[in-house]
Amino acid sequence: MLKKIKTMTAGWWKKPQDRIEKALNLPKPVKAVKSEPTKQYEAHICPSYNELKMVFRNVGRMSAIIETMGRDFLTAMPQGAYVSRLGQIAFLYRRQHEDLAEPKLVNFLSDAKTHAHDNPNDWDEWDKANLREIEATIRHHINVPAELIEKRARLAYEGRHVHRDVLKNNDWEQGQIFLEGMVELHQRIADYKNLEDNDHPEARYQALMREFMPGARLDTMDTLFKGYKSEVETLIPQILAAQSARPNPMQMTGVFSGKSQFWLNKALLKKTGFDFERGGLYETGHNPVEGGTPDDTRLVIKTAKIGTFLDSMKSALHEGGHGLYIQGLPRRQWRYQPVGQDLGAVVHESQALLIEMILGRKREFFDYLAPRAEGVFQRFDDPALTSENLWRLKNHVGKSIDRKSADEVTYFLHVHMRTQIERKLISGELKVKDLPDAWNQMSKEYFGKKPKTNAEGCLQDVHWFVGKFGYFPSYALGHMMAAQLYDAMLRDIPHIPTQLREGEFGDIHIWLNNKIYQKGRLQRTDDLIRTITGEELSYKALIRHIKNRYLN
Amino acid sequence: MLKKIKTMTAGWWKKPQDRIEKALNLPKPVKAVKSEPTKQYEAHICPSYNELKMVFRNVGRMSAIIETMGRDFLTAMPQGAYVSRLGQIAFLYRRQHEDLAEPKLVNFLSDAKTHAHDNPNDWDEWDKANLREIEATIRHHINVPAELIEKRARLAYEGRHVHRDVLKNNDWEQGQIFLEGMVELHQRIADYKNLEDNDHPEARYQALMREFMPGARLDTMDTLFKGYKSEVETLIPQILAAQSARPNPMQMTGVFSGKSQFWLNKALLKKTGFDFERGGLYETGHNPVEGGTPDDTRLVIKTAKIGTFLDSMKSALHEGGHGLYIQGLPRRQWRYQPVGQDLGAVVHESQALLIEMILGRKREFFDYLAPRAEGVFQRFDDPALTSENLWRLKNHVGKSIDRKSADEVTYFLHVHMRTQIERKLISGELKVKDLPDAWNQMSKEYFGKKPKTNAEGCLQDVHWFVGKFGYFPSYALGHMMAAQLYDAMLRDIPHIPTQLREGEFGDIHIWLNNKIYQKGRLQRTDDLIRTITGEELSYKALIRHIKNRYLN
Repeated sequence: MLKKIKTMTAGWWKKPQDRIEKALNLPKPVKAVKSEPTKQYEAHICPSYNELKMVFRNVGRMSAIIETMGRDFLTAMPQGAYVSRLGQIAFLYRRQHEDLAEPKLVNFLSDAKTHAHDNPNDWDEWDKANLREIEATIRHHINVPAELIEKRARLAYEGRHVHRDVLKNNDWEQGQIFLEGMVELHQRIADYKNLEDNDHPEARYQALMREFMPGARLDTMDTLFKGYKSEVETLIPQILAAQSARPNPMQMTGVFSGKSQFWLNKALLKKTGFDFERGGLYETGHNPVEGGTPDDTRLVIKTAKIGTFLDSMKSALHEGGHGLYIQGLPRRQWRYQPVGQDLGAVVHESQALLIEMILGRKREFFDYLAPRAEGVFQRFDDPALTSENLWRLKNHVGKSIDRKSADEVTYFLHVHMRTQIERKLISGELKVKDLPDAWNQMSKEYFGKKPKTNAEGCLQDVHWFVGKFGYFPSYALGHMMAAQLYDAMLRDIPHIPTQLREGEFGDIHIWLNNKIYQKGRLQRTDDLIRTITGEELSYKALIRHIKNRYLN
Repeated sequence: MLKKIKTMTAGWWKKPQDRIEKALNLPKPVKAVKSEPTKQYEAHICPSYNELKMVFRNVGRMSAIIETMGRDFLTAMPQGAYVSRLGQIAFLYRRQHEDLAEPKLVNFLSDAKTHAHDNPNDWDEWDKANLREIEATIRHHINVPAELIEKRARLAYEGRHVHRDVLKNNDWEQGQIFLEGMVELHQRIADYKNLEDNDHPEARYQALMREFMPGARLDTMDTLFKGYKSEVETLIPQILAAQSARPNPMQMTGVFSGKSQFWLNKALLKKTGFDFERGGLYETGHNPVEGGTPDDTRLVIKTAKIGTFLDSMKSALHEGGHGLYIQGLPRRQWRYQPVGQDLGAVVHESQALLIEMILGRKREFFDYLAPRAEGVFQRFDDPALTSENLWRLKNHVGKSIDRKSADEVTYFLHVHMRTQIERKLISGELKVKDLPDAWNQMSKEYFGKKPKTNAEGCLQDVHWFVGKFGYFPSYALGHMMAAQLYDAMLRDIPHIPTQLREGEFGDIHIWLNNKIYQKGRLQRTDDLIRTITGEELSYKALIRHIKNRYLN
């Protein structure tokens, strides 16, 4: 029978090529969108670059597929599919990695770089940036064994469930086993990466950090963190003193229906410019998830608690900020190409925090929100819903040892502490078995108290369980960037506060689109912020913002 | 910089192999399911067979991923993602096809077949069957150009939307353009397939049919269709006469809330044995979709009409029958292997029609349902909800020209007519431009009247728009098989009617599990039916069933 296969290969059904072509050039069906030439498909004069573009088109498609599969995993999948879905997602990551680790890519890259060097006029700034990002991506993959990538993908998804269980049961013993594996695996992956600056003493951690923040440097981060820490630690006692001179915020009472909260959150997202034709808002029992693609940006927040609407609103605005960035990326021209993607976690968090914290906690925003909240929740004249009280509730500073309920001012301390710890875990200086002691001691040092249990301490965050070593710094760097961007935006649009009082985000949306979203990865983060603000990334604007908001 | 990549490949971070292994042999995380050895992963003595098993594990994973992406496409995806999702799904089909068309597979297959031939004792019946199905799958792919597969996948998903629009606008012109492309494309794909019996005069159509019904033969189908057609056409006038002697069924009035219908449908599915831990029931504005995997069987039915609960119940029972089959497949031992899959459309439709039509329209089932429906819909003593009236409503015979609202008796005529037409389309004897005339003429011949519009005629079905040429026959063959299986089941479990009156499906479920679901593709359809019933697939049981139900 097999023989038949071989014989028939030369047989009658081997139709001439023109018949395939006829079938492939079928009449355009009714609804087909006119395919205008895009930069992704445009034939560049350098053939190797065209080859790379098609490889990365496929890589980008795979990322989009992984996004959808992961979203489904967290929100809609029946629980019985858990084990097989882990295998499917890990398989996709492996296939994508294999495409990126193909040795022929190094040759294409070499050709394309030579071409760009010798024929600079054939390469516009977008193509050059795309090639730069192609190289960076290849460097993250080329030497890493596929088994490690597959394993990591599986454990990262498994980790979400493991974390839920160890947290519920305060089960350090099981947490330790899992984290030891995760740390070991990430050390190995980092060792295999072929990035620049691999001679840095903390090269491993920097390499992992760069998966989230392309091109980030530890020394830059250290300088920023050190300076900001010293300033904010001076401010905190002053802020607490000023706060104690004001009346305490009035807590909300009674029930805020989940349905009304959900309606409000969607309405606010619409106002910020989120396009529900290309995305949506969903609730889940899990932690929130950011992500998606410009055409399919499905934001997932935790199911609302009924005692207050401020927590689910915070999540919606935060994820909404991520979503707006994703939706604004240059999807038509550069859909799946590296240069069409976001700039990574720092810029992403800056966009989320700009909407959620910088804008979404301004008094003018609460002026807009307060009377409407009275209507949405059918509570005319509820004294907890005045603009003044909402402002106080959202901007109350404390020294919680729980990161997720931390305020804008002390949040940095949580990030700083976690960053110090994870660096030592990845370098090997701190063993996972010693994590609880180290955590508790630092908690005392940073917050003046130790957690009562590991669940309240070193198990509280999901990050390490999903392999996000090197992600924490982006919250703080993103916060700095958000404040800096707001200053620049205010210079261009001085009437932002007035507009916020009207619930008007139009000019803000256009500004962010033009300056950030539509730029994709045309510039790297450092250059982008210099272009927009005229300055390096710095913590000065954030300190001004903190003083302005909490000491006035 | 590129030089650096090359230099560093031999550098310090190239860690010894044992460190990778350490990272890969991480301690088992908390929730990890104990991985018992399964036949899928068991090391067989023939290495080429093991290679094939791993290729097909990946192919099966890809199928599962495509299922999830397709389900999401039809139910949850925001509309703005339409174009890019088409590209993603087509890309997955192409990658899967490329894995199946790898020339090395032919060598593995050749080796494994030789091994099986020379060492029959090393191959149990499951491994032998798996190898047979591996070969069949490879034959469907090995010579087909990847471009055609990618194109087909894209058009098949696009076709669902195209069909919705041409149907709504009765737009034959656009429908014709799209169908011409689809026919041409499927002719080409069929030509490239490397199946047995490729010398059949209608080899193309038979090849396409075999994508849905592995190993099916046109001559067998012709014999069955001819015999059944002649018998049922004799019965129809008798049935109509008998029916006219009985009172007409009383139509339902008022509103049956969608929520209550949905609750009822889920409750009935639970009773039939559907496992909601590994699946679910969903509603959509589109046509129903069957499919999924044994761990993730998400059934999708059309959003309920509020004027009757019988239509959505029919859909739920039908899709439920598909779902039960999928959930019962040998997922532990043979998860992604070909032998662990379903036997294709005939057996699938037999399972759906057995639950929906054979069992779900028995008077005893309505005895169980009727009083409970009065409760679910809060209509005590509604005369339309008596068991007798429900039976009459569901078993009323007419001569509708609309397939989807056709009754059990005349449904075959719709299938027969479509089968004749699509054979001619694929052979080229009938041109798409002549389809409306051919359709209308046959409609007159089969049903005594012509449709008023193409939307009511040749555009009514989605099948050709999604490339399902060769699927229609499975409805009729599946119906025959369902009746034959019911007879066999009744011999083993004579008290089925009594049990149905109690809403008890337990014995039925066990019987189907043991005889069909758990067998996967151990035997091919013809052999399976012979094993279970002692006879060839035949229409005799169906004719007995029709006489029994409609002429008693």
